[in-house]
Amino acid sequence: MKIDVLFTPVELSHQRIEGRVVVVIDVFRATSCIVTAMASGAWRLIPVISVDDAHAMREVLGDGEVVLLGGERHTRLIEGFDLDNSPFSYSPQRVAGATIVMSTTNGTRALRGAVDFGASEVLVGSIVNATAVARAAGSAGRDVAILCAGRKDLFTIEDSLCAGMLVSMIEAEHTAQMSDAAFAMKDFYDRYADNLRVPLRHCAHYNQIMDNGLADDVAYCLTPDLLDVVPRMSLTKGHITI
Amino acid sequence: MKIDVLFTPVELSHQRIEGRVVVVIDVFRATSCIVTAMASGAWRLIPVISVDDAHAMREVLGDGEVVLLGGERHTRLIEGFDLDNSPFSYSPQRVAGATIVMSTTNGTRALRGAVDFGASEVLVGSIVNATAVARAAGSAGRDVAILCAGRKDLFTIEDSLCAGMLVSMIEAEHTAQMSDAAFAMKDFYDRYADNLRVPLRHCAHYNQIMDNGLADDVAYCLTPDLLDVVPRMSLTKGHITI
Repeated sequence: MKIDVLFTPVELSHQRIEGRVVVVIDVFRATSCIVTAMASGAWRLIPVISVDDAHAMREVLGDGEVVLLGGERHTRLIEGFDLDNSPFSYSPQRVAGATIVMSTTNGTRALRGAVDFGASEVLVGSIVNATAVARAAGSAGRDVAILCAGRKDLFTIEDSLCAGMLVSMIEAEHTAQMSDAAFAMKDFYDRYADNLRVPLRHCAHYNQIMDNGLADDVAYCLTPDLLDVVPRMSLTKGHITI
Repeated sequence: MKIDVLFTPVELSHQRIEGRVVVVIDVFRATSCIVTAMASGAWRLIPVISVDDAHAMREVLGDGEVVLLGGERHTRLIEGFDLDNSPFSYSPQRVAGATIVMSTTNGTRALRGAVDFGASEVLVGSIVNATAVARAAGSAGRDVAILCAGRKDLFTIEDSLCAGMLVSMIEAEHTAQMSDAAFAMKDFYDRYADNLRVPLRHCAHYNQIMDNGLADDVAYCLTPDLLDVVPRMSLTKGHITI
């Protein structure tokens, strides 16, 4: 098995994605929220890019089902939306049975890109479901690509640490040929596995979120294996289920 | 001062390059050859992409100067060329006073890209001139971007270790705000500063070059500070001088 890591959706190509199991990561906080929502019993989650797309999607879906809009701008709840981008908002009380339309720029681009470039499966990963998603990706009998959402097309420390964590877990269970990027990220994660906060102090996004008073969200997003679910993006329907 | 690292030319953008001092790295072996050629007294070096471009350039330059064609395909001398891609070929005996036209895919794209996206200066870096190029980049009074040539648009361990080495050297001398990528690469280099071969054993390109019997070239390219020159790419003339 080959394992590769893509640092941002800018790197997407048929050559690196086609036929592979792709794990999409956006630790702060889109994929942490998606994993939480699905574990809380949401029926399905539809990732969209813009706020307007989210409103339009609710119109299209109509009144036959419970539709909740989720997402954030500048780390805060969007006006007219039901849920912000805190994983604590995606509790069973709020989301069980619902269709969630989530507005997330980097995460949506990564999820759709994985589908568009021909992935065989698209899994949603984060630190909170690391073991579950690593097991699902590693046991699929295909090459694996881990796609970090990054931030504004830039490498981020939080996503690459999570990517390295997944490489480390998969490589512990399977004979795997790591790409240069996969090795470097595994090495990065292995060095700090016992204290991810050390490198995160150098991470622009981490510092911004902490400055916004979201320390509880960060602590949650950095806790391994809170949840044992593996959300999957449909290759045809544009939504995520488990 | 801000310091950023770009892993491949795919990441090039005005936002990340404009107004910055850009150091272009292609450790195996283009920038190691360029640094060596300029230290050996070559008059100038013109990077081109294709073999045909190299021949065409020699035609254009005419008979008024000594023009040597350099480069490789599949690690070997190109038919009709004068110099392969071994730094040992760029000795003073061979290249002093000459114009060298070098065919290199990844390196040329990186060098031209840095110019096209508005760099204020474009410096040629490698491990063999690390201290010299780090000093030049750090003392320019501008933000710095280190641009790895990579390989076929992929992250490579050798270029990213060299990028980390330069970040480490600049950050030791200046108050620098590292991007997430710059921090991660500094961290990668710092971990292996005393033995770069440990991570390189996981590097596809390193293993290919070693398998091709080029151990002496590799040893040379991995030796810090053999040379005290800083080649610069002209922002207008398409050539490199010191």
